[in-house]
Amino acid sequence: MPLTLTDIKNAFERINNKVHRTPVLTSSQIDELVGAKLFFKCENFQKIGAFKYRGATNTLLSLSKDKLANGVATHSSGNHAQALSLAARELGVTAYIVMPDNSPKVKIDAVRGYGADITFCEPNLQSRESTLATIVDKTGAEFIHPYDREEIIAGQGTAALELLTDYPDIDIVIAPVGGGGLISGTAICSKGLNSQIKVYAAEPQGANDAYHSFYSGQFVPSTNPSTICDGLLTSLGKLNYSYIKQHVDEILLVDDNEILSAMKLIYERLKIIVEPSSATVFAAVIKHNNLFTNKNVGLILSGGNIDLQPLFDNYSAKL
Amino acid sequence: MPLTLTDIKNAFERINNKVHRTPVLTSSQIDELVGAKLFFKCENFQKIGAFKYRGATNTLLSLSKDKLANGVATHSSGNHAQALSLAARELGVTAYIVMPDNSPKVKIDAVRGYGADITFCEPNLQSRESTLATIVDKTGAEFIHPYDREEIIAGQGTAALELLTDYPDIDIVIAPVGGGGLISGTAICSKGLNSQIKVYAAEPQGANDAYHSFYSGQFVPSTNPSTICDGLLTSLGKLNYSYIKQHVDEILLVDDNEILSAMKLIYERLKIIVEPSSATVFAAVIKHNNLFTNKNVGLILSGGNIDLQPLFDNYSAKL
Repeated sequence: MPLTLTDIKNAFERINNKVHRTPVLTSSQIDELVGAKLFFKCENFQKIGAFKYRGATNTLLSLSKDKLANGVATHSSGNHAQALSLAARELGVTAYIVMPDNSPKVKIDAVRGYGADITFCEPNLQSRESTLATIVDKTGAEFIHPYDREEIIAGQGTAALELLTDYPDIDIVIAPVGGGGLISGTAICSKGLNSQIKVYAAEPQGANDAYHSFYSGQFVPSTNPSTICDGLLTSLGKLNYSYIKQHVDEILLVDDNEILSAMKLIYERLKIIVEPSSATVFAAVIKHNNLFTNKNVGLILSGGNIDLQPLFDNYSAKL
Repeated sequence: MPLTLTDIKNAFERINNKVHRTPVLTSSQIDELVGAKLFFKCENFQKIGAFKYRGATNTLLSLSKDKLANGVATHSSGNHAQALSLAARELGVTAYIVMPDNSPKVKIDAVRGYGADITFCEPNLQSRESTLATIVDKTGAEFIHPYDREEIIAGQGTAALELLTDYPDIDIVIAPVGGGGLISGTAICSKGLNSQIKVYAAEPQGANDAYHSFYSGQFVPSTNPSTICDGLLTSLGKLNYSYIKQHVDEILLVDDNEILSAMKLIYERLKIIVEPSSATVFAAVIKHNNLFTNKNVGLILSGGNIDLQPLFDNYSAKL
């Protein structure tokens, strides 16, 4: 049975007291600029700094005690690794995380800080998968895929559920697409609440496998993606593709320069830190402006985990 | 009659529907780090991106129609210029702003964007004052000092009033000191609500005129201040000095490196943009940690107007 709004609502009941109900920000200056009323759902304020904590928490709370008895495992150097580690710690479950040995120290420290058991591998997909297989084999841990899994998708959809509960007059919802967990959950939720709501996905030009899959009508795997949006380099999931085909209206491409300009406006006007992946949605509203004129638009800002060292290097250099 | 809590409450009633009631953020990770419970009052989310909008609005709403008839004037290249310009526009009053001719374009554009009448002067205090005097003489505009004025102080105190209304169990309130408007209003309000509350001021080591004045017992003017906190370079006001002497418990010094480290933690953990001046208060909590252990601490984050170009230059260089 494919996921429906009911699954998102059940996920919300399950995780509600474990996740932050993130704020929704607005800016009259930004609204003037784009000629629409924008509602920014701030998942950068979510635990671990990204929406991923919703899906990880929902998945662990959906699994039986037996399934959790030997721990959970994944390979990731990004937000999913932190999300799974913290969600597991909160439930007293061991998290085994396979990370490429060239992962930034700040990310390794964060995952370790959440108490995960880290195994390093070579920085390629083959090594990640074979290392993970060995660990799962040895420990009996349950593999938690970062996006291609129904409990993950249902969890990610709760951000849109909160947004549309707070602002039921929203006409359009837009979320980024990478692996597709967030946009799938967002689309299932939004269309389930109101079939008139338009749902758009924003995707970087340099990692446009979802775009090609969506408009060609056949699943096109990602090859050599290149974008500043490190959270959107992953290849679209098969399960996610099926939900996107069914529930998403358009996929809007934006290039890295457009993403950076949008990100700067978010920093300057909203005074919040978001990672480049988050800025794709605002970049799409600016670039494809005619789709949004005079509409109430909900934008899911996916996360805020970004290396700020360059900014501080510059300040330190002034001292 | 010196200002009391009643004046702050009156200011609040006057400006309440014109200013943002800014959010208060907390972080369990930060609390763990410092061994205290911190409540960050986010004036970086205030209109024009800083608390200054409170004082400017209160002042204009306190003045008679006659006084406002010929407009208002000030010299400033910073947040006060923007605050006065927007507050004046909201009331249909002309704002005359004297700005040094080397002011950053982004600040000139912001003031112009709020509809102010800008006059440029040479970048020194003498030229600023003489240019302002000429304009006041010619137009009959009312000069609005950025901090050494009672209506300004009362307006700035409303941030603490909101904070302590939302969190009445706060034991300590800390705010930055530059000219002294914010800390004066904060101290009058906090001690007026509860004389047991400790009030601390945070000041950059490189601009420590308030520190010297406070502990020597005589007013020491600022000479050659040097700090990354561009908002705290101004010299303490005489009126502000008298309120600080009466109501502030300690002035805590922090150096620029400590301020930068604290600012980075705020960016990384709270996911918000603040300017260096704002980070002084958190730097003081980290440095003078024994004063804060196990206390509930309210920190006024004064503003978020910072040039983010260095960060984006670095990102653009990667493309």
